[in-house]
Amino acid sequence: MAKMVLLPVLLSFLLLPFASLALTQDFCVADLSCSDTPAGYPCKASVSAGDFYYHGLAAAGNTSNLIKAAVTPAFVGQFPGVNGLGISAARLDIAVSGVVPLHTHPAASELLFVTQGTIAAGFITSSSNTVYTKTLYAGDIMVFPQGLLHYQYNAGTGAAVALVAFSGPNPGLQITDYALFANNLPSAVVEKVTFLDDAQVKKLKSVLGGSG
Amino acid sequence: MAKMVLLPVLLSFLLLPFASLALTQDFCVADLSCSDTPAGYPCKASVSAGDFYYHGLAAAGNTSNLIKAAVTPAFVGQFPGVNGLGISAARLDIAVSGVVPLHTHPAASELLFVTQGTIAAGFITSSSNTVYTKTLYAGDIMVFPQGLLHYQYNAGTGAAVALVAFSGPNPGLQITDYALFANNLPSAVVEKVTFLDDAQVKKLKSVLGGSG
Amino acid sequence: MAKMVLLPVLLSFLLLPFASLALTQDFCVADLSCSDTPAGYPCKASVSAGDFYYHGLAAAGNTSNLIKAAVTPAFVGQFPGVNGLGISAARLDIAVSGVVPLHTHPAASELLFVTQGTIAAGFITSSSNTVYTKTLYAGDIMVFPQGLLHYQYNAGTGAAVALVAFSGPNPGLQITDYALFANNLPSAVVEKVTFLDDAQVKKLKSVLGGSG
Amino acid sequence: MAKMVLLPVLLSFLLLPFASLALTQDFCVADLSCSDTPAGYPCKASVSAGDFYYHGLAAAGNTSNLIKAAVTPAFVGQFPGVNGLGISAARLDIAVSGVVPLHTHPAASELLFVTQGTIAAGFITSSSNTVYTKTLYAGDIMVFPQGLLHYQYNAGTGAAVALVAFSGPNPGLQITDYALFANNLPSAVVEKVTFLDDAQVKKLKSVLGGSG
Amino acid sequence: MAKMVLLPVLLSFLLLPFASLALTQDFCVADLSCSDTPAGYPCKASVSAGDFYYHGLAAAGNTSNLIKAAVTPAFVGQFPGVNGLGISAARLDIAVSGVVPLHTHPAASELLFVTQGTIAAGFITSSSNTVYTKTLYAGDIMVFPQGLLHYQYNAGTGAAVALVAFSGPNPGLQITDYALFANNLPSAVVEKVTFLDDAQVKKLKSVLGGSG
Amino acid sequence: MAKMVLLPVLLSFLLLPFASLALTQDFCVADLSCSDTPAGYPCKASVSAGDFYYHGLAAAGNTSNLIKAAVTPAFVGQFPGVNGLGISAARLDIAVSGVVPLHTHPAASELLFVTQGTIAAGFITSSSNTVYTKTLYAGDIMVFPQGLLHYQYNAGTGAAVALVAFSGPNPGLQITDYALFANNLPSAVVEKVTFLDDAQVKKLKSVLGGSG
Repeated sequence: MAKMVLLPVLLSFLLLPFASLALTQDFCVADLSCSDTPAGYPCKASVSAGDFYYHGLAAAGNTSNLIKAAVTPAFVGQFPGVNGLGISAARLDIAVSGVVPLHTHPAASELLFVTQGTIAAGFITSSSNTVYTKTLYAGDIMVFPQGLLHYQYNAGTGAAVALVAFSGPNPGLQITDYALFANNLPSAVVEKVTFLDDAQVKKLKSVLGGSG
Repeated sequence: MAKMVLLPVLLSFLLLPFASLALTQDFCVADLSCSDTPAGYPCKASVSAGDFYYHGLAAAGNTSNLIKAAVTPAFVGQFPGVNGLGISAARLDIAVSGVVPLHTHPAASELLFVTQGTIAAGFITSSSNTVYTKTLYAGDIMVFPQGLLHYQYNAGTGAAVALVAFSGPNPGLQITDYALFANNLPSAVVEKVTFLDDAQVKKLKSVLGGSG
Repeated sequence: MAKMVLLPVLLSFLLLPFASLALTQDFCVADLSCSDTPAGYPCKASVSAGDFYYHGLAAAGNTSNLIKAAVTPAFVGQFPGVNGLGISAARLDIAVSGVVPLHTHPAASELLFVTQGTIAAGFITSSSNTVYTKTLYAGDIMVFPQGLLHYQYNAGTGAAVALVAFSGPNPGLQITDYALFANNLPSAVVEKVTFLDDAQVKKLKSVLGGSG
Repeated sequence: MAKMVLLPVLLSFLLLPFASLALTQDFCVADLSCSDTPAGYPCKASVSAGDFYYHGLAAAGNTSNLIKAAVTPAFVGQFPGVNGLGISAARLDIAVSGVVPLHTHPAASELLFVTQGTIAAGFITSSSNTVYTKTLYAGDIMVFPQGLLHYQYNAGTGAAVALVAFSGPNPGLQITDYALFANNLPSAVVEKVTFLDDAQVKKLKSVLGGSG
Repeated sequence: MAKMVLLPVLLSFLLLPFASLALTQDFCVADLSCSDTPAGYPCKASVSAGDFYYHGLAAAGNTSNLIKAAVTPAFVGQFPGVNGLGISAARLDIAVSGVVPLHTHPAASELLFVTQGTIAAGFITSSSNTVYTKTLYAGDIMVFPQGLLHYQYNAGTGAAVALVAFSGPNPGLQITDYALFANNLPSAVVEKVTFLDDAQVKKLKSVLGGSG
Repeated sequence: MAKMVLLPVLLSFLLLPFASLALTQDFCVADLSCSDTPAGYPCKASVSAGDFYYHGLAAAGNTSNLIKAAVTPAFVGQFPGVNGLGISAARLDIAVSGVVPLHTHPAASELLFVTQGTIAAGFITSSSNTVYTKTLYAGDIMVFPQGLLHYQYNAGTGAAVALVAFSGPNPGLQITDYALFANNLPSAVVEKVTFLDDAQVKKLKSVLGGSG
């Protein structure tokens, strides 16, 4: 029983030096009120279990739109607990005939789990322009390497849902159509750098809200 | 129409220099027949769409065991396409009253999506031994920082399923009980470094197959 | 003079232990005959000064093509000395009215120095689709963040030349037009994921050699 | 002598442009009054030689406690000069029959030098639960990979001392017993996730100050 | 035409969720008014195209000095747009018989493009003290691995100019002569750690402004 | 007792899936017979406890030489267990009046523990050529940032010993004198890039075995 008697001594001993170690960075929940840094946001001073939890992916996104799809992010901006942890997530809802248009994530690779329905997905390599495509069913996963153009669309007869994980807390999302047609990049420049016809460019600029 | 006539010239021009660029590393599917390196496996010479796809998480794991739980991994060893991409996944099935015992992932943070049922989960910090716990329902996500002890158990009345993503291709899984009781670490040493009673150690060593 | 007499002892002493240190990795010239790894190629066993030198950017690229432009790379495939060093280069020649079409580098940021002529350049952000453009003259530099769509074209009345540096040995080059129109991705899929008209897609597929 | 006459010109020339380079980050001594970031603390504005020096490991830690051991850290919290440098240290004093209980460092590998006495040390792998153990004498070193469970205890007849280096400025220290028994994690949860008996859990919770 | 009618819905849908994503870190232009961090400066709140552009390398540096050379930096301190992007640049002007003295860059590898004239350059390895030298002409490139001693001097009959890229935003520049002779390191210490003669040390200390 | 009866089922269940996980990379002991890669050596197939242990620092180095000092490395070449772990070590013995000449470690920061005697140490910054010096006694530690020139010499009246840790498995060691005078770099070049006098250069080249 000597062990039991003496253990409280251990406790007070060990806890003291490491109590001053409130500096150990087990995690770094983002303080979004601060400026970002190249490695992520400064850490929030006081955290609770809720900082590591996010409910925002529980409900389906609204797919009553043209693309009949919704991407609901749980990136560092929505879910500050992932700051500095090299991971984040999103929910993808794609109604029948819906599509997530061609896009890249400049700052992360993507891993997609299909939880419902059928999704056709593909990505294109940078060197040889090779296309890798798969039709994915519930339970299937597919990985899309960082920075490469890819797409997903509903290839089934019912709604499709996927949970997506990213290899970084802030993957970015660059939809090619929006980059080209939803801003003030002049049509002449778009045409010059894409070889698209003037009518095509102006049509999509008009639809997507671009000017110039 | 001059543009159309001349574009084939562009094609042959641009394709030539970059055809020799079969060296661009858009991805690096693991060649598991080679030795691993600190950054991952050497890249497979020839890849197809199947290398970026994995079907192994589609079926529920067999939970007819004591813990009433199953972890089905899609790490680099099962899903070589994630090599070098900083991400991997697993499927978690937990039957009623099942549990994923206390464990760490030495080489990755974990992001858990509950797709069915109710899961109680928690992790413990290194400095202050603070416990962060949450009860998670379908659609909820929780993040577990790299290297910290955590657990999940079924807190509902039906089977629970979760999809788990990791911030690395090879996260590792160190279950505390197995580290202590399922090998040949002598009981006296286990007792010395854990303060557990001899009877407790021998009981669990016997159950978990440890010797010594 | 005692110092002078004794220094050879120092020499033999110090050289001996460190002669066995042929293991120090000051650099890691790529052995392109080996498989790549996620961190780059294995190191060549024997190197000479020539491995750190490259002459291939000295001559202008051939701009007698539709885009009236040439990109001459000094990536790890052409210049193995940059392997593992986090840097590489290319030469850009753009004849009058020439253009480097819209593209990304999935694996590096780009820093462009104009050495001759006038170049109009721009990039587009992922979140807000904001366009940042500049007209660059000889001596100017511009930086293009990793993974973001950008372009360069000759905005002057004479040939333009630029030297380009990348923040990695193997930056990749994904030209949007080639990703869409120079492979076997079916026209219907291209249209679905880009909202481009069928006629436009087929026209460019025909020109750029795509099938489907 | 022309060289000597002209060198002051060089001096003023070279110093001027680089004097404005007070921005070069040779080091980044932690400003502990600021919030941490995922890459470490912001840099202190003004530093002196004392910032790169630490005296706190010179004296033996107090081993008059149950474990008969003391860990004296020189992590970023005690020694701000290591911030951003990927290294830190600690001193380990273990009296006769003392022990450093089973623990992990979530954020660093450990390299231990024995400077006095005899230490038995071991670590356990994550995949196969393999145990690697060594008895270490003065002058011996052993390395413990990041995140893996390990322990050290005095295996000799006199006091043992070791100097420990870590591969990061803030390695963390998660002692399994404290994670389980020194907080408010309910006994029922501890039992569920460890298979330990209720009496064992309550005994150690009582001793280590845990509640619940 | 249904597609055209409905696209505005897509627009409003997609733009809304991601408008709140002003958090996506496509880049992190340095806010030099803040403290640096180990990963670079905090990000400036509001940026414009000018932040990604730098004109300061357009003009030749003043080589009317002893070394007949000028290094004009475009590091993060001069060109905040490179913060966090792993790249920076400098311009090197070397008049006839000019020299960039022996130096290292502690925090980056260097890639040098000769744009005019003839430059003799070399670097020395750490293990075997092997010297790798090349005479470089306009158009040639050479790479100098991080942290290794190297030099460049004009080996031609006219002015030489080079553009230099670095694998980091803040490479540092440690000129051996200035480290030894342009500060208050006592002559006796310099002599002890270099084996240089007292007269030599005092001569250069006098010339380069050192004291002690 | 149902728990005890059923636990073997758990055992066989859990061990099976993870037995095939011999792929988990808890560590990567260097296979020095393979080519190095930018991230370190490929992993040895079969390891034992001895791979994580090194005895080579137990004995004092031979200081019967001019510098009266000895550096005994435990880098990846001597201690393959540190491969991929971001850490390594060395032992430093300095006899009375001995010195470790001015040098850098291109690939790691250094943390020095004095275990015996008195050591004067200093390092010099890259930007301002500022010197930071300390006299260190037994138990003191000092950190030297990566790539910066530094030195150590015996400042006491008895032998000095230090244990040194590095923030990487292969730190490199570039001794300025050896880089300049112990190879075939022509004296004229050495003089041009250092401003040293011809007589001084030839004297040291002769002593240190350099040619040219």
